[in-house]
Amino acid sequence: MRSTPLARNLVYRPSTASSVLRERVRRPAFIEKLAEPSDLVPLFKNDDYIGWSGFTGVGYPKRIPTAIADHVEANNLQSKNRFNLFVGASVGTEVEDRWAKLDIIARRYPHQVGKEIAKGINAGRIEFADKHLSIYERNTVIRVNLSIGHVAFALISPSKILIVELQAIVEATAITEDGHIVPGASVGASPEILESAENIIIEVNTHLPNLEGLHDISQSFIPPNRQPYLISHPEDRIGKTSIAIDPDRVVAICESHLPDNTGENSPETAESKAIAGHLIDFLSEEVDAGRLPKSLLPLQSGIGNVANSIIGGLAAGPFDKVMVWTEVLQDTFLQFFDSGKLDFATATSIKFSPDGFNHFYSHWSDYKDRLLLRSQQVANAPEIIRRLGIIAMNTPLEVDIYGHANSTCALGSRMLNGLGGSADFLRNAKLSIMHTPSSRPTKNDPTGISCIVPFVSHVDQTEHDLDVIVTEQGLADLRGLSPRERAPVIIQKCAHPDYKDLLLDYYERSLHECLAAGRGHEPHMLRNAFKFYTHFMEHNTMKIDGWD
Amino acid sequence: MRSTPLARNLVYRPSTASSVLRERVRRPAFIEKLAEPSDLVPLFKNDDYIGWSGFTGVGYPKRIPTAIADHVEANNLQSKNRFNLFVGASVGTEVEDRWAKLDIIARRYPHQVGKEIAKGINAGRIEFADKHLSIYERNTVIRVNLSIGHVAFALISPSKILIVELQAIVEATAITEDGHIVPGASVGASPEILESAENIIIEVNTHLPNLEGLHDISQSFIPPNRQPYLISHPEDRIGKTSIAIDPDRVVAICESHLPDNTGENSPETAESKAIAGHLIDFLSEEVDAGRLPKSLLPLQSGIGNVANSIIGGLAAGPFDKVMVWTEVLQDTFLQFFDSGKLDFATATSIKFSPDGFNHFYSHWSDYKDRLLLRSQQVANAPEIIRRLGIIAMNTPLEVDIYGHANSTCALGSRMLNGLGGSADFLRNAKLSIMHTPSSRPTKNDPTGISCIVPFVSHVDQTEHDLDVIVTEQGLADLRGLSPRERAPVIIQKCAHPDYKDLLLDYYERSLHECLAAGRGHEPHMLRNAFKFYTHFMEHNTMKIDGWD
Repeated sequence: MRSTPLARNLVYRPSTASSVLRERVRRPAFIEKLAEPSDLVPLFKNDDYIGWSGFTGVGYPKRIPTAIADHVEANNLQSKNRFNLFVGASVGTEVEDRWAKLDIIARRYPHQVGKEIAKGINAGRIEFADKHLSIYERNTVIRVNLSIGHVAFALISPSKILIVELQAIVEATAITEDGHIVPGASVGASPEILESAENIIIEVNTHLPNLEGLHDISQSFIPPNRQPYLISHPEDRIGKTSIAIDPDRVVAICESHLPDNTGENSPETAESKAIAGHLIDFLSEEVDAGRLPKSLLPLQSGIGNVANSIIGGLAAGPFDKVMVWTEVLQDTFLQFFDSGKLDFATATSIKFSPDGFNHFYSHWSDYKDRLLLRSQQVANAPEIIRRLGIIAMNTPLEVDIYGHANSTCALGSRMLNGLGGSADFLRNAKLSIMHTPSSRPTKNDPTGISCIVPFVSHVDQTEHDLDVIVTEQGLADLRGLSPRERAPVIIQKCAHPDYKDLLLDYYERSLHECLAAGRGHEPHMLRNAFKFYTHFMEHNTMKIDGWD
Repeated sequence: MRSTPLARNLVYRPSTASSVLRERVRRPAFIEKLAEPSDLVPLFKNDDYIGWSGFTGVGYPKRIPTAIADHVEANNLQSKNRFNLFVGASVGTEVEDRWAKLDIIARRYPHQVGKEIAKGINAGRIEFADKHLSIYERNTVIRVNLSIGHVAFALISPSKILIVELQAIVEATAITEDGHIVPGASVGASPEILESAENIIIEVNTHLPNLEGLHDISQSFIPPNRQPYLISHPEDRIGKTSIAIDPDRVVAICESHLPDNTGENSPETAESKAIAGHLIDFLSEEVDAGRLPKSLLPLQSGIGNVANSIIGGLAAGPFDKVMVWTEVLQDTFLQFFDSGKLDFATATSIKFSPDGFNHFYSHWSDYKDRLLLRSQQVANAPEIIRRLGIIAMNTPLEVDIYGHANSTCALGSRMLNGLGGSADFLRNAKLSIMHTPSSRPTKNDPTGISCIVPFVSHVDQTEHDLDVIVTEQGLADLRGLSPRERAPVIIQKCAHPDYKDLLLDYYERSLHECLAAGRGHEPHMLRNAFKFYTHFMEHNTMKIDGWD
């Protein structure tokens, strides 16, 4: 049953509305609900369920979360007021990491990035379940169609199923006459969060331009009433330019002048350039052989320095009229646009550096017709990824000799950044590519960690999902290969020279043992499969003496 | 470049055509190509690439493969004539297992079932790569759009990419005036195989009824030209009743009177009934709580005795107007239809027992409007599975305490049946359920194998994909739980009592160690993670003394 909004005895300050705010908020009744963030803090109580807008540190609410953190600090409520926090992906560290450090996050779904939040997860203070970004609602949050007909927010706990009141705090760059929300530079899970929220608070960001027209927001349905996404080309629009909400659920609005707290993009290195070089050569060969069109197929690219090198390389590369269907755009996409080789890009978030955003907003008219932002449910939809035949490129922590990859947990246990959309793209792509350095340094060994291992310590992408693995050493094309054919190719092409012999020896001994035992399909010595890790935990390097 | 058909100096015997064959083959030019299987044997040479129709031992060519095997035996060509064999899924053991035993299969993609073929794979004689059935063309076979505009069949080998001539042998129950093929009781990958085949041979099965109208065959496109599958309900038709082919590529037809060599379905046991009982209770609770409609959502069910118990249980259960969207139908679906509770079912194959088929064909008019067969690319499409909100139920070999599952490789290495469509369904379902006995017997211990383990020896389904795990012991509802919350629930609800304490002890020690080391998200002791297996390999039981 829907409850009534939580706003009781709230102090509203409509008379303080700035003229720019009055221009951005085209529904006058919402101006009547203008409040100061500090006045809203008492609305949030211990064990509340809170949903925020935001994706990859862009488009998140800034003032109210900060006011809540200030209040916690001022009143020594650390570890006492604890919230269950739902955000499509990550938000700015000044908010999320601060909350984590104050120990006011009890549960955080379905994605996170940040040192302090990972620390809280790995220390057992924060419950985190890693789910595909395309199915925000499926597991972590169950949107149920109650008999009264609307969508409620339910969470399964170990003992029972809770139907909880979700409080949404979202950023907008404008509000329409209908009270609908024009987001900032990300969409993420905001449509789903807003649809199931009992109470909605909107931070209208007047520092950013009004981004109306940048978004394509489609309604999400619950089975059995879902309909096809009628997208056959990256530039197809299927939705509206704002997120529809029930205006009666809006409790308050605030004005915000704070920019998205993005940092610089990761700088390219010799290694990332080498990886990009192998990849662009590979794509060129596919085009030359007639297996890919000259414009390629729509590209998805992860984030990080390798991704930057790849997109930078494409801006100087041989392909024309390229399309991008991806999750996040980084600065190098600006070069790619400016090179004239990128025709159109769509994503769920724009994560530019501060300089990148300045350039983007000041050349808005050059970009606005070549760009669309959609919800993560659409951007990462298996349906569309498979239909368009995406070329997907992502970074793992490590891959193994048969083509399984670990995207999330170091040593099988320590959560780093979460799965994100990597599996949405890699499983459904036409060409699924993972790129990684062949090794990483430890304190006492510049190549102490091999990124090619016998058996990955956590499997996020299976052997059934990967086509190509690239390191600075080379590229392994795994298409059509059986496990016994894959292992030598991955080791020879991708492993760091310091580990090649060890890995080959592992494979050959395993092959010999397993064939003899009649289990030679994917040969392993299970007693030794994790020896790289157990040795690493004691010696800070994976360089074992051998397999005996 | 397309080659000309391979038929040179073939002896055709149109005058021997039976009247029933002339009725079934409505394109007279094809009758002119009637041949005896033994006359076609010389067409197949060492290292040829061959594609067959067939799925779960139904709808496969029987006479020509048998003639080839006879020829191999008569001329001692075992291990000499070796073929690369592509079939959507498995075919009858009298054909496929016989070929494997004769060692005339060099490569077998993308699925297989059968003792002899598994033996060949695990002995290193047969190369096998396990891929999702929904993407037959993506990895194992690369369908390329050459500049001349048609689809060719390419295979990547470790050293180079081959464009090969594929010879297709498919079963039909009728041929239309256009020369298009009406399949038998499965569709599988036949449309894709036929589209890329240079030469086509058709076995027209006149023992079976003409099944025209049972199939919904949609054209498959290659990116960037793919279109949405406009299916919003299981009964929606999007295609034609036959598979379009280029009649000029037809080299010969044969007549066949051989039935599909299906066996009896696996019998129910007390264990399978207990699992089904837990599952039906769970679904009832979901309906009572308003989280599922009274007709449920469309069901997918794997094969085996648990699947039979579940579907049998539903036939006597509380749900009405149920729909089924699945890969394979077994005998219990007949009861389900006859109970009046199943409204409509669609799959890519019907795998009834001989008695089941007799009942089905003799009551054809009762079933024909409540049933559709589609290609595996459509039946297993993530797009449709997610849209319809399927409830998916499949059997793994084993699951681990965090919800990863092994569907394919015993001890991480020994291939059993292949992945099939399990991951297509489990990742995209609205509710993804895996059911398994909690333990299995070994020679010296009736519960020597625990199906709940600390770390599965091969990951086919990840923790990101499973909602519910059921054994005869109970049901673990994992929705919304973090890894630390999942482990105790899975162990308490699902593990066999003989292993509960060992597993809890593993979890608690791992938790203690990993929290102390700041890696407590998914706690493991990697040195012990595979100890159940290493102990089993020596002692034929997983009952270890402890974790020290």
